[in-house]
Amino acid sequence: MSSQTKIKKDKEIIAEYETQVKEIRNQLVEQFKCLEQQSEARIQLLQDLQEFFRRKAEIQLEYSRSLEKLAERFSSKIRGPRKEQHLLSSVNCWYLVLSQTRRESRDHATLNDIYINNVIVRLAQISEDVIRLFKKSKEIGIQMHEELVKVTNELYTVMKTYHMYHTESISAESKLKEAEKQEEKQFSKSGDLNVNLLRHEDRPQRRSSVRKIEKMKEKRQAKYSENKLKCTKARNDYLLNLAATNAVVAKYYIHDVSDMIECCDLGYHASLARTLRTYLSAEYNLETSRHEGLDIIENAVDNLDPRSDKHKIMDMYNQVFCPPMRFEFLPHMGDEVCQVSAQQPVQTELLMRYHQLQSRLATLKIENEEVRKTLDATMQTLQDMLTVEDFDVSDAFQHSRSTESIKSVASESYMSKLNIAKRRSNQQETEVFYFTKFKEYLNGSNLIIKLQAKHDLLKQTLGKEKEPNVELQGEDGMLVPAIRILVNPFLWWWRAVYVTLIYMGCNNKAYSEFLDLRWKSTI
Amino acid sequence: MSSQTKIKKDKEIIAEYETQVKEIRNQLVEQFKCLEQQSEARIQLLQDLQEFFRRKAEIQLEYSRSLEKLAERFSSKIRGPRKEQHLLSSVNCWYLVLSQTRRESRDHATLNDIYINNVIVRLAQISEDVIRLFKKSKEIGIQMHEELVKVTNELYTVMKTYHMYHTESISAESKLKEAEKQEEKQFSKSGDLNVNLLRHEDRPQRRSSVRKIEKMKEKRQAKYSENKLKCTKARNDYLLNLAATNAVVAKYYIHDVSDMIECCDLGYHASLARTLRTYLSAEYNLETSRHEGLDIIENAVDNLDPRSDKHKIMDMYNQVFCPPMRFEFLPHMGDEVCQVSAQQPVQTELLMRYHQLQSRLATLKIENEEVRKTLDATMQTLQDMLTVEDFDVSDAFQHSRSTESIKSVASESYMSKLNIAKRRSNQQETEVFYFTKFKEYLNGSNLIIKLQAKHDLLKQTLGKEKEPNVELQGEDGMLVPAIRILVNPFLWWWRAVYVTLIYMGCNNKAYSEFLDLRWKSTI
Repeated sequence: MSSQTKIKKDKEIIAEYETQVKEIRNQLVEQFKCLEQQSEARIQLLQDLQEFFRRKAEIQLEYSRSLEKLAERFSSKIRGPRKEQHLLSSVNCWYLVLSQTRRESRDHATLNDIYINNVIVRLAQISEDVIRLFKKSKEIGIQMHEELVKVTNELYTVMKTYHMYHTESISAESKLKEAEKQEEKQFSKSGDLNVNLLRHEDRPQRRSSVRKIEKMKEKRQAKYSENKLKCTKARNDYLLNLAATNAVVAKYYIHDVSDMIECCDLGYHASLARTLRTYLSAEYNLETSRHEGLDIIENAVDNLDPRSDKHKIMDMYNQVFCPPMRFEFLPHMGDEVCQVSAQQPVQTELLMRYHQLQSRLATLKIENEEVRKTLDATMQTLQDMLTVEDFDVSDAFQHSRSTESIKSVASESYMSKLNIAKRRSNQQETEVFYFTKFKEYLNGSNLIIKLQAKHDLLKQTLGKEKEPNVELQGEDGMLVPAIRILVNPFLWWWRAVYVTLIYMGCNNKAYSEFLDLRWKSTI
Repeated sequence: MSSQTKIKKDKEIIAEYETQVKEIRNQLVEQFKCLEQQSEARIQLLQDLQEFFRRKAEIQLEYSRSLEKLAERFSSKIRGPRKEQHLLSSVNCWYLVLSQTRRESRDHATLNDIYINNVIVRLAQISEDVIRLFKKSKEIGIQMHEELVKVTNELYTVMKTYHMYHTESISAESKLKEAEKQEEKQFSKSGDLNVNLLRHEDRPQRRSSVRKIEKMKEKRQAKYSENKLKCTKARNDYLLNLAATNAVVAKYYIHDVSDMIECCDLGYHASLARTLRTYLSAEYNLETSRHEGLDIIENAVDNLDPRSDKHKIMDMYNQVFCPPMRFEFLPHMGDEVCQVSAQQPVQTELLMRYHQLQSRLATLKIENEEVRKTLDATMQTLQDMLTVEDFDVSDAFQHSRSTESIKSVASESYMSKLNIAKRRSNQQETEVFYFTKFKEYLNGSNLIIKLQAKHDLLKQTLGKEKEPNVELQGEDGMLVPAIRILVNPFLWWWRAVYVTLIYMGCNNKAYSEFLDLRWKSTI
């Protein structure tokens, strides 16, 4: 043992040991406190969650009821007078918006139901579990701590035994050493005597003293050996128990504490996860349902169709839009001539008139075609204005990390007041121009159609190129497309065309042009 | 002309024509009424939509505010004492649920903003457009109707002219016929006379009479021809105007009415579509934002981890869970022997003790392994109960066509009271059994670890095969699983193991193996 090592006495060692054990016991107490705090924090968290979902359920119900009331207010209006309108694509959109509102209302009521009858029930159960498991884990912990107390107590006992036997061993050793010293002294005395004063009468006395010392030495030697063995055994016991104690303490700190915490945790995370997944399932399903509803509306918006609505209205009011009977030639007082007469002397005049009409028409058509082109271009401009894609509001839903206040959607961008005013004034100017041009075109085309009708009749009468009746089976199959487009809903239109064909009785090229136009405008 | 055809007089014809024209005019009036009704219906629809979105915006704001208040109430609690808890995975979930609530609150406020400042503004503009366009379209319609009145008036005029000239033509023809009859009469008279009474003095008188009749006939013939020509021209004019009128009427009913309605519709569908798409964009974006938030929560739920939370808690309270100093051998009064002494006479005894420990350990390990197996199986059963996938609530969001009331989620299925009670009682029974077995296992393993420590020390002392320290790689790999879980964040754990290894006095080979394992388990 080196010189630095302080020689320690029983009391010092015991005090040192007791301090170390006390520290461990303090830790054990603190460990329980810590687990208790954790359980309390969990119970608090679960209580907060329950309160949160209770209030959130209420909010869902309020929201659901507000939406229901809102939908009901407008739905009852619809059941009223405007029923026949429901086929119009715009009205259809409105109905779907209402039905989406009802759907949202139902879904949020379902959310309320799930929060109350599922999520909160689960949370309450987890709270119970946390309390129960904390108690049970503490029991386990107590058992673990008892084991630690037991081994440290045992170690204490064997340590004391070692101390005792070691003390005795030291004492026996010093006694032995003392005897050896005496013996040595005796030997050195007798050596001196042998040389200098070897007296006869002294010898037996001295011999018995030496024997006595030797006997004592032997006795002390035996005592020392016995004590040394006891000390060795005690030390061995101490060392073995030390190893056992260290192993138990290490096991506790590495495994058991962890196991104890795991007992506390048993199922907590899994149950909480299931509860939150229930909440998520509800929210995701609400979302899916909302999405489906929105898709239905979007589809209806895609199908917003002015043409089809127009035909529906004309069908609805078919008496009002049905073409009237053709004006027939009414012969006066049995007049037997029913056709344009082109015999002399009128023939020359008619021929002249025919040629005049022909050249007049050519000019008019060119002029009106110019007007029509302007009209089309203006319409295109208007259409561009009317279909500008200005409806994306995704910017408003950007959640930046910073907690900046929500930007008003109207504050900048497309919907700002300045922009709106500018766009609307533009639009209305274009509109005014369109209507001016439209009137001009209308005048022109009315004149053309009249002159054309007269021109065509004269042409036929004067026997200028005979033409087949183009309307029904024109060389370019003119009527075929017209028929093709007459899909069922537009019954009125079909009848109108049919009636018109009959009552125009007539020409032919103009009419086929009309069919052609209509065909193009339908697709 | 066939006998069936009734010979019609002016008045009849005019009356017939006027009836036909009157019918057309009535239709035109009705057409305006119809367009007006449509415009009114649109304005009503747009008003309804505005009212609807105004109220829906209010509902969004109420909802947003309720959610905000709710989130605030719990967020303020968090800012309080339990701050250090925020690293725990369960607490993290709770914070994310709150932050999702705030996000929903913000998004619904945004919805309110978009409804008020965008959707409603658009709807008001469409209303203005509908009113303005109806007026303009009516102007166009009036122009169209004037054209119809004009052509029917013209037709009326030319028809009357035809009637007049035809009347005159008939009258001239009958006068001519009368003259021819007289002439014939004259001829037959003179023939009789020639045969019977050819008197001298009668002849010149007769001759002048014949001449007179002939002159009259010629005059009447000229008059008739003139009238007939006038009539022919008038009839031609009538027929040409008839064709023109029919063409104009046909054009009106086929094109113009449709054009007029289109003028009324100009941009209505497109603007309504843009408005509804704004609404849809807002709703879809709200949904996307909600979805993102839910995904964040779902991710946190996926990451709910009892093990990591346990280590975080042990790190948080690292003073409390840090392994204490190793119990060292404290030599008494400078005792220089620090190890188990195995010289005779204790050697035999130690050997015996060693063999006893060996066989005792073998039995104990087998017994405890059986307990451990039961424990593992029980834990598996518990885990199965705790992780059952019972959180899908999609059934509650099925929207069937029928308007059946919402089924309560708790009424049947997994969350029914009966099921819950049954499952919980099962779970708790298993739990009780688990804890009983756990205590049994704990006792067994504590005994084993103590005996093993003593056994190993004796083995080393007695010079039985040199083995590395068994704790670190016991045949049941006791420490190995403990090491496997040592992932990086668990600094405490890492230190604990390090300290423990040192204070267990472990041997180097085992230690380097442990480090190797640790490395592998970290990556």
